Amino acid sequence: MEKKIITISREFGSGGRTVGREVANRLGIPFYEKELVDQIALESGFAPKFVEENGEHAPGTSRLSYAFSHQGVPGVMNGLSTADFLWSIQCNVILQLAEQGPCVIVGRNADYILKDRKDVLDVFIHADKEFRADRIVRLYGESEKSPMSRLAEKDKRRAINYEHYTGRNWGNAQNYDICLDSGSLGIDNCVDIIVQMYNKK
Amino acid sequence: MEKKIITISREFGSGGRTVGREVANRLGIPFYEKELVDQIALESGFAPKFVEENGEHAPGTSRLSYAFSHQGVPGVMNGLSTADFLWSIQCNVILQLAEQGPCVIVGRNADYILKDRKDVLDVFIHADKEFRADRIVRLYGESEKSPMSRLAEKDKRRAINYEHYTGRNWGNAQNYDICLDSGSLGIDNCVDIIVQMYNKK
Repeated sequence: MEKKIITISREFGSGGRTVGREVANRLGIPFYEKELVDQIALESGFAPKFVEENGEHAPGTSRLSYAFSHQGVPGVMNGLSTADFLWSIQCNVILQLAEQGPCVIVGRNADYILKDRKDVLDVFIHADKEFRADRIVRLYGESEKSPMSRLAEKDKRRAINYEHYTGRNWGNAQNYDICLDSGSLGIDNCVDIIVQMYNKK
Repeated sequence: MEKKIITISREFGSGGRTVGREVANRLGIPFYEKELVDQIALESGFAPKFVEENGEHAPGTSRLSYAFSHQGVPGVMNGLSTADFLWSIQCNVILQLAEQGPCVIVGRNADYILKDRKDVLDVFIHADKEFRADRIVRLYGESEKSPMSRLAEKDKRRAINYEHYTGRNWGNAQNYDICLDSGSLGIDNCVDIIVQMYNKK
């Protein structure tokens, strides 16, 4: 097995991004997460914040999406809804990044977008709700909504988006080479396992 | 993390049993798979072959089950269907084995049965259909049915049984600490990862 690309899908609050960044550091290869958003923003003409909020969410859930899809923006979005337009750019950006060489890509359904490459190690990081709720409050602070409802909302939106664009069930082990519970195993052990599998021949 | 028990759930043909046996060898702890069947047979009064064929399958799918559940066997099965009767014995056997000390348990929904223990490492082994079809023909030989239909039938029966008795979705990553694709990672790498995580504190 010679894997050159690592995709990391993750439940909100599971530490998947932290795992991905540390894996990239340890392997000395590029890490793409926010960078994906910036690139998609650049190529779509939308603001990074808009891409960030809409790119991994259910299609057609934003008012802007609805407005655009009905008005159409000839020559730019080719009549696609905003979500579908962002999806097509996201696919292009991820396919191009993978062509450039070894890297870690977090989120954005990269496992599915790169499914035809043979050199990809697909990872899913998850954890129970208590672990994730505690973690998001520590990292992102309190908000008006309870941590549990923030988790439920993000989980639901990521699942709907994934299922809509891939036809697969979110969180299904069969979609990935490795799925790890960061809550029970610990973030460092998750990093160790991924680095180890990447380096195996 | 101090895990003493390892449960291995597996797709038919994925090599999960082989992984489990090798993990138990490497750790020097007991391995329970056929032994579970024998113990359930002993405690239920059914033949091992009957237990093996009915214990991980959909409830109420055998004619015997139907017959027993309607005739009843007072004082023995307490009016339970055969499937439910086997399930109750299976739960007792697995809970007792776990009490006896470190071990590896393959199959029989042990992840769910032991869910209240904190010292369990739950593993799911899966692989794509081509890998599994090739493996079952190599290990178990040809049969009247095509390898793909043998896989489809076993997958379906295990999933229905798991979902019926646990209320969880079969193959969902969130049910396990570690899920591994034995086809893409290789059996030996799966063993390494599990042994490593078992030994971590």
